[in-house]
Amino acid sequence: MNDTKPNSVENLRRSFAGRRVLITGGLGFIGSNLARRLAGWGEKVTIVVSLYPAYGGNRFNVKGCANRLEVHVADVRDHARLPAFVQGQDFLFNLAGQTSHMDSMTDPETDLEINCRAQLAILEACRKHNPGIRIVFASTRQLYGRPEQLPVAETHPLRPVDVNGINKLAGESFHLLYARVHGLRSSVLRLTNTIGPRMRIKDARQTFVGVWIRALIEGRPFEVWDGAQLRDFTYVDDAVEAFLLAATRDEAVGEVFNLGGPPPVTLHQLADLLVELNGGGDFAVKRFPAARKKIDIGDFYADWRRIHEVLGWAPRTSLPVALRRTLAFYRNNLVHYV
Amino acid sequence: MNDTKPNSVENLRRSFAGRRVLITGGLGFIGSNLARRLAGWGEKVTIVVSLYPAYGGNRFNVKGCANRLEVHVADVRDHARLPAFVQGQDFLFNLAGQTSHMDSMTDPETDLEINCRAQLAILEACRKHNPGIRIVFASTRQLYGRPEQLPVAETHPLRPVDVNGINKLAGESFHLLYARVHGLRSSVLRLTNTIGPRMRIKDARQTFVGVWIRALIEGRPFEVWDGAQLRDFTYVDDAVEAFLLAATRDEAVGEVFNLGGPPPVTLHQLADLLVELNGGGDFAVKRFPAARKKIDIGDFYADWRRIHEVLGWAPRTSLPVALRRTLAFYRNNLVHYV
Repeated sequence: MNDTKPNSVENLRRSFAGRRVLITGGLGFIGSNLARRLAGWGEKVTIVVSLYPAYGGNRFNVKGCANRLEVHVADVRDHARLPAFVQGQDFLFNLAGQTSHMDSMTDPETDLEINCRAQLAILEACRKHNPGIRIVFASTRQLYGRPEQLPVAETHPLRPVDVNGINKLAGESFHLLYARVHGLRSSVLRLTNTIGPRMRIKDARQTFVGVWIRALIEGRPFEVWDGAQLRDFTYVDDAVEAFLLAATRDEAVGEVFNLGGPPPVTLHQLADLLVELNGGGDFAVKRFPAARKKIDIGDFYADWRRIHEVLGWAPRTSLPVALRRTLAFYRNNLVHYV
Repeated sequence: MNDTKPNSVENLRRSFAGRRVLITGGLGFIGSNLARRLAGWGEKVTIVVSLYPAYGGNRFNVKGCANRLEVHVADVRDHARLPAFVQGQDFLFNLAGQTSHMDSMTDPETDLEINCRAQLAILEACRKHNPGIRIVFASTRQLYGRPEQLPVAETHPLRPVDVNGINKLAGESFHLLYARVHGLRSSVLRLTNTIGPRMRIKDARQTFVGVWIRALIEGRPFEVWDGAQLRDFTYVDDAVEAFLLAATRDEAVGEVFNLGGPPPVTLHQLADLLVELNGGGDFAVKRFPAARKKIDIGDFYADWRRIHEVLGWAPRTSLPVALRRTLAFYRNNLVHYV
């Protein structure tokens, strides 16, 4: 091998050779893609997943590699079980979360239990039972609230506009505090819209793009609310690479990095592109529903220069490629996701 | 009366005439001073207080006015009881909190239960059972973390340096979100060091000044850590006035205001002043203990121009007057506070 860049695939692979990895939310969208990558490298991956129907966990997500995985159906709110899960692990990818902004408004206490309280419990379990573990926490652009300027860098004020954002901010802050004060090797990635195979398409709890794709494949029109909002999209394979990088690099400890994607598009442009790639389809542009409008953030796209400079990460997958692969995946596997 | 300014005492008094007031943490330091003021005006005040020995509640704090108060010894973590407490109230002064920064690091889950989770439960109880209630939440300068510039205005980045700060930020954010999204009439005061009669002096869980005053009165030397840090101090009567103002003024709804005090002093200057006002006493300047240093915020003093401009509030009590009154109170009542 002549590839000596620290973030080359070969180097990443070597960093995980023979190491034990725990993924919370590991049958969910990003978690399962991460688990598949590691399992494909022959690593042993332990997964903690709730498999509640409203969340992202889906056993089909690990079809073909389940024999390399140890799956515990458990709830991160069951704090008493956490020490046993974290003990003996080298890495923790901490992705279990409640992702629906609307659900966080109608059932704020559940969102708090998962996105805030359980995060502290996970960190306490690591501090007490496995202080050497390396942790990467999946945070969200939702922490920024309505952007003051674009693109949004990590230094942008944090002003979440919904219960989900408030709880995720607390969860993220605990991870950074435990790095600074207790010496845990944790880092944080703030995700923007992530898309790709294995995302939830049943409803909009994870991303509206899932709902659009399902409708397209089922031959139904979908709704675009407003349509003028700018958004950026990270393809899931690129997100997975960022998690792997952040877990293995000392420069990431105690740090926060935005993920991002190719140049942003309006939702209307995204809808047009999807219809084109699908070879047909219909959508209707509608006004924003009032309940959603209250917690909408307007235009958003992330400045991802920091992770590029510090860890060498960049989104590699163009939006058309990301969407084409995603459409193809759901055309072949629709029955397992609806 | 010729006094028509909206924040005149007479106007404040009129705003509360015949109204029902609930104070969480109402036997604590600021809560009891607030309760005494309202009871002195003849109002009916309901108090919810945990009376845990490590917290600020003290029955002696309402000596002489207990007959005007309805005291419920209850824990805000007992969510099922909250609806009954908030029903029928016109005002809620929400002051129940875990205040110790060090305790928040050694027992982070308790801090979360009280400062974050219970706050959401209180707001949910109000939203469901008394959406017209006016709420003032006691927040803290701890949200700012280590100041980037001084004085610290409300626009300063929020970067808490300990578990207490993270949870208080979530608690505060819920109050502002419920104003914006659910129309609750809540406002937030970010307190700096508040001092005065009825503060906890048993230990440093509420403020280090309590420990100093107790030592002075008991004739023991006290310790000043470092001594060069700048701090500002709000006298409790001034803080009480800010709470009353914020509760009654529409301009405060959904808003955050710093409280502050007379010009800041170094901790060394404060120690000298206390010794002088006490007519004697000793202190030793020590290095910062390591565990505290990790979560120390350096110099801090608040910019309180916003509450001055919007609500007309200003700290009226000079530092020497505040300290003299505080010393006199504990000289007369020491036995009830140690």
